[in-house]
Amino acid sequence: MNYKLEYITRLFEKTNKKRIENYVITRLWHQLNNPDIKMVPQQYVIRNGKNYALTDVYFPQFDICVEVNELAHYETQDKIDSDEIRNEEIKENISCKVYEIDCRKDLNDIHKQIDNVIEIINTDLKRQEKNNSFKAWNPDNEFSIEYWKRKGVIDVSENIGFFTIDDVCLLFEADPRKIRRGFLRKGAIAHPKKDDLIIWWPSLNQRSNWKNSYDSATGEIIEFNIDSDKNMNHLNREIQNNETRVVFLHHKDNLGFITYKYCGIYKLDVKCSEYLQKLCWKKISEKINLKTLAY
Amino acid sequence: MNYKLEYITRLFEKTNKKRIENYVITRLWHQLNNPDIKMVPQQYVIRNGKNYALTDVYFPQFDICVEVNELAHYETQDKIDSDEIRNEEIKENISCKVYEIDCRKDLNDIHKQIDNVIEIINTDLKRQEKNNSFKAWNPDNEFSIEYWKRKGVIDVSENIGFFTIDDVCLLFEADPRKIRRGFLRKGAIAHPKKDDLIIWWPSLNQRSNWKNSYDSATGEIIEFNIDSDKNMNHLNREIQNNETRVVFLHHKDNLGFITYKYCGIYKLDVKCSEYLQKLCWKKISEKINLKTLAY
Repeated sequence: MNYKLEYITRLFEKTNKKRIENYVITRLWHQLNNPDIKMVPQQYVIRNGKNYALTDVYFPQFDICVEVNELAHYETQDKIDSDEIRNEEIKENISCKVYEIDCRKDLNDIHKQIDNVIEIINTDLKRQEKNNSFKAWNPDNEFSIEYWKRKGVIDVSENIGFFTIDDVCLLFEADPRKIRRGFLRKGAIAHPKKDDLIIWWPSLNQRSNWKNSYDSATGEIIEFNIDSDKNMNHLNREIQNNETRVVFLHHKDNLGFITYKYCGIYKLDVKCSEYLQKLCWKKISEKINLKTLAY
Repeated sequence: MNYKLEYITRLFEKTNKKRIENYVITRLWHQLNNPDIKMVPQQYVIRNGKNYALTDVYFPQFDICVEVNELAHYETQDKIDSDEIRNEEIKENISCKVYEIDCRKDLNDIHKQIDNVIEIINTDLKRQEKNNSFKAWNPDNEFSIEYWKRKGVIDVSENIGFFTIDDVCLLFEADPRKIRRGFLRKGAIAHPKKDDLIIWWPSLNQRSNWKNSYDSATGEIIEFNIDSDKNMNHLNREIQNNETRVVFLHHKDNLGFITYKYCGIYKLDVKCSEYLQKLCWKKISEKINLKTLAY
């Protein structure tokens, strides 16, 4: 199946328990009727630097969020107030404009509200096309090593993920054959031109006693071995090594696609690690230049 | 919630296990973008006078069926052949034109196929509007007693259903208060102007030992009491009475709406009933005139 069809039908599928949300989202897509426009499903965004808020759908090319408010949203004034606070918070934190579709109204009125969002998007699209600044949704690029190598820099904000470890290696011209050890695969490889720059693809699934966790709000990664001797040896070695890690998190995204997602450049936070007795990796940069390795 | 929104979101919900079918059906609706056009979900139609075939979506105002063929449809030549036979059979039996959406293709190609169906529907819509023959989808009429009384005739082909027994009674100017017996409700009432014309609303759920069944292909209804004495007494009485029944079947339709659906005019088939030792009701007419009571 075509990737875009796979992607968008999974996005529709995610909302199939909420009939009205599904109606609004399918209408936005089919009425926009432009496969160059990307829709991003429900995603958590940071709220008050700590909690999370859930947006129903996000249009990254236009920085627009749409919130579908089904009947339950309006049941009490408290709920209305907290929704308003939430929308304000989303605006504050991810800068996006939030449009709310009020589904207490009838079909024609819901259509008018959706038409309004579509008009805003299409107006901005025209402006961007005039400016030559519009970047069409292109999954073939998103998953192409050659595309990112030509681009020269990878940045967390571009939502980069690859389907295989081989692709992750090839992006840095590391030899994927070197990660195979019999039936096992290594969890990381050094950059071929820079020994202390480690390309790392941690998984959130427990593997041979390694338990990792990832905080999507702060980007912090905790690495930990349940065998305490191994854990402390590893911690002490890493404090010595003082490595820099380029992280590709092996994860299943909210549409069910399993990728190695680029998360940024990390250094060990020694104080935090000694305190937690676990390896505490902190993000120090969102970007890296694939040629100069500057970050 | 608005009935049309309730209806169409239930229709979308029905296909949410089949991602591509859901995509095609949501696109048909949102691109047609005309709330006067009714879509009818998956329904069984008679095949070879005996078996059933399932159409994915049906547009009753244009007599058009759409079949969404996901990848599994094409796995073997046998499957292709049997699908072709099935489409031919649907055409034969319900006269509708069948359009097949081949989902092995990419997004643009699927869009082109859907656009083609939409163009055909819109062309026919213009023709009907010119002729003054287009009947807009109007659920307010569908469920309005006054609308059907003004119309004068009810016909099975018009897919008539009501939400309450009171509505069924009022259609024939029968007194709904007469059907209440303490906590129980009668299952039928005689027409106020014609004693042997019985307005009957059988249920397919077992109630106080009565077990009814309905054959959607032939319209035949079997009425049966699991207490054999009561059953035979009732059968003998009905053979004597020689009633005519106007039937409103209490059922949950395939979108989950529970209605009393008009099924036609019935007479007891005595031979069949004596043979089965159950009351075997056969449809003798699809229509009845609400004033003259001619059928």
